[in-house]
Amino acid sequence: MSEGANPTSKEELGGLEDSKFFGWICESKDCLGKMVWSRFKPKEWRETDVDIKVECCGICMSDLSTATSGWGPTRYPICVGHEIVGKVVRVGKEVKNVSLGQRVGVGAQSGSCLACEECKKLNEPYCVKGQIGTYNGKYKDGSGLSQGGYSNYCRVPAHFAIPIPDSLESVVAAPMMCGGITVYSPLKENGCGTPGFERVGIVGIGGLGHFGLIFAKALGAKRILAVSHSNSKESLARELGATDFLATANSKGGEDGFKKHARSLDLLVVTNNNADMPIHKYLGLVRPKGKVIHVGLPEDPVMPTPIGKLLATGAFLGGSMIGGTKLIREMLELTAEQKLRPLVEVRSMADANQTVLDMHAGKPRFRYVLVNQDHDLHQQRGGPKL
Amino acid sequence: MSEGANPTSKEELGGLEDSKFFGWICESKDCLGKMVWSRFKPKEWRETDVDIKVECCGICMSDLSTATSGWGPTRYPICVGHEIVGKVVRVGKEVKNVSLGQRVGVGAQSGSCLACEECKKLNEPYCVKGQIGTYNGKYKDGSGLSQGGYSNYCRVPAHFAIPIPDSLESVVAAPMMCGGITVYSPLKENGCGTPGFERVGIVGIGGLGHFGLIFAKALGAKRILAVSHSNSKESLARELGATDFLATANSKGGEDGFKKHARSLDLLVVTNNNADMPIHKYLGLVRPKGKVIHVGLPEDPVMPTPIGKLLATGAFLGGSMIGGTKLIREMLELTAEQKLRPLVEVRSMADANQTVLDMHAGKPRFRYVLVNQDHDLHQQRGGPKL
Repeated sequence: MSEGANPTSKEELGGLEDSKFFGWICESKDCLGKMVWSRFKPKEWRETDVDIKVECCGICMSDLSTATSGWGPTRYPICVGHEIVGKVVRVGKEVKNVSLGQRVGVGAQSGSCLACEECKKLNEPYCVKGQIGTYNGKYKDGSGLSQGGYSNYCRVPAHFAIPIPDSLESVVAAPMMCGGITVYSPLKENGCGTPGFERVGIVGIGGLGHFGLIFAKALGAKRILAVSHSNSKESLARELGATDFLATANSKGGEDGFKKHARSLDLLVVTNNNADMPIHKYLGLVRPKGKVIHVGLPEDPVMPTPIGKLLATGAFLGGSMIGGTKLIREMLELTAEQKLRPLVEVRSMADANQTVLDMHAGKPRFRYVLVNQDHDLHQQRGGPKL
Repeated sequence: MSEGANPTSKEELGGLEDSKFFGWICESKDCLGKMVWSRFKPKEWRETDVDIKVECCGICMSDLSTATSGWGPTRYPICVGHEIVGKVVRVGKEVKNVSLGQRVGVGAQSGSCLACEECKKLNEPYCVKGQIGTYNGKYKDGSGLSQGGYSNYCRVPAHFAIPIPDSLESVVAAPMMCGGITVYSPLKENGCGTPGFERVGIVGIGGLGHFGLIFAKALGAKRILAVSHSNSKESLARELGATDFLATANSKGGEDGFKKHARSLDLLVVTNNNADMPIHKYLGLVRPKGKVIHVGLPEDPVMPTPIGKLLATGAFLGGSMIGGTKLIREMLELTAEQKLRPLVEVRSMADANQTVLDMHAGKPRFRYVLVNQDHDLHQQRGGPKL
């Protein structure tokens, strides 16, 4: 989106009122395709907050799981969306890390204690007091509930608003704020590309997985195995960086492929979240002391795990949740520096309902991004005149 | 046992015949308490083998699981036992690592390819072609089945016979060959005592776990949490090295204890093998990127694992299987140097049946060791005159 298409008025820069927050609201778990564009109540303003005029917002499977109470009861009404890029239009007096007018991104986390050991290391997702999500969260200082980015504005503690490098397009940066960092974090944190961790695999070549291939290559992995259901994405996976390809739907659950690539990896990141994924087979792909790291969270998060296979392979099974603000900055800088090109499919914010339905149907090849082409959308959609 | 009590005759040193191998034989999975002392067929002699006159043999839960086909069909008739210490009485022409008359130990592994990457690193349990157990194994060179140490003699490839330091008593060394190394390996291999890995926990304070406390301390851990069912072993655990104690049977499954010690460890070794162990609680005891490592193999080795908890904690779940010959040597040397005192309860080889029943009943506080007090036991027990 060009600057001109989304003008920032003087009034907005001066003092945005809570009444200007509109977004796609889910009223109940039956809301897929039925979100209603309406006013919502942002968290109470604090002088450590910023208000952001939303330029665009990626669609994450978490949005759907939360909208439908798939991970447990959701706090309705809710506005989801946590791959947000926009311009800062209001800055709290105590904010130091971002300035008025700056373009920033907000990911899946918008709160933590900022005082514990992990927060001090900027590994905020592992805050000892727990993280507060960008939506469906409740701030512990009594400032209310967090609301996401299928909206015109959003309000978050400034700590979680990360500047976007100038050369990075907003629609490219948006899905990196959750989808990208979810895969970048386990790769980087587990040494992808360093000696002993140069052989990397990515399971699931979709929204998350395609970031995995791109980042694995950018981080210096020498061998990159893409594990996908069928061969349909093989040529694309190779374009993105894969040196090897394993289709699990081929010949007896990909048995030959799993045999061929047995123990061939140092690190495997699993982006699937289907409950029937064959963890024991994934463990067989890494060398002893290699790591298999889950980043997808099945709605039934207790899965049968072959303890015997853990002993037999000597491999580690781990999980990783988004990534801290330090890693997000680093990922954005790497992407800008190396001119990486993640794949996005742009839709209009006006078409959020259809886009969510398409996401639910598994239609996106990679990542959908909703763009506020006309920021005053709520008026077109029958919203009240502000 | 003193030297004199177990004389090595000239004949034995010269050329032990296969017909001299006697041991406690399991005929079927219904054999607990019903093993029969009788002649068995050792593997066929190869010039890379040694014959060992068994001085003593520890009792491992694996012996019982194998004897009863708990881990799958066992090759009956079988002689179990893989915590063996004895004297080398016959040495193959191609053997270089041990010599006639030398006191050696044999653990749970007695075969591997010795050519793959892992074998070359002396990490033989992770041989790419699989390990061959000291009993219930089948040698790939056609030399037959492996048989264990509830016996007067055993025959193994010399590579897996490890010299015992002179100052270490046989009955102390024996249970270290499997029980000890099973816990030493994950501690050592995961940096126990090095910066960032100084806070260590051991779940299960029994045969394996007590080694864990002793080794964790010897390797320099500064904080050692013993996790046990009740408080009954607290004072002993502290004597062995524990600085903290958590009883899981206290107040709502040890909830307060798990809360108190949340995220307080870098490394946790789980020696339990009960199918209902609370893996999610164990994961909560380690810091983000900490490791929970299973060394006990439940008979139903597929356990429900909370993938959500893996993501939420950022911890790793791993497994470890015994340890390679390099680590076994190192463990024995450390034990001798630091004059460590693992706890054993000595029984006579003659009482193997009762001892196995006592083991099955959970009676041993630590490790049973069967001693061949009279090496010609088979004659006393009605065995044929040799």
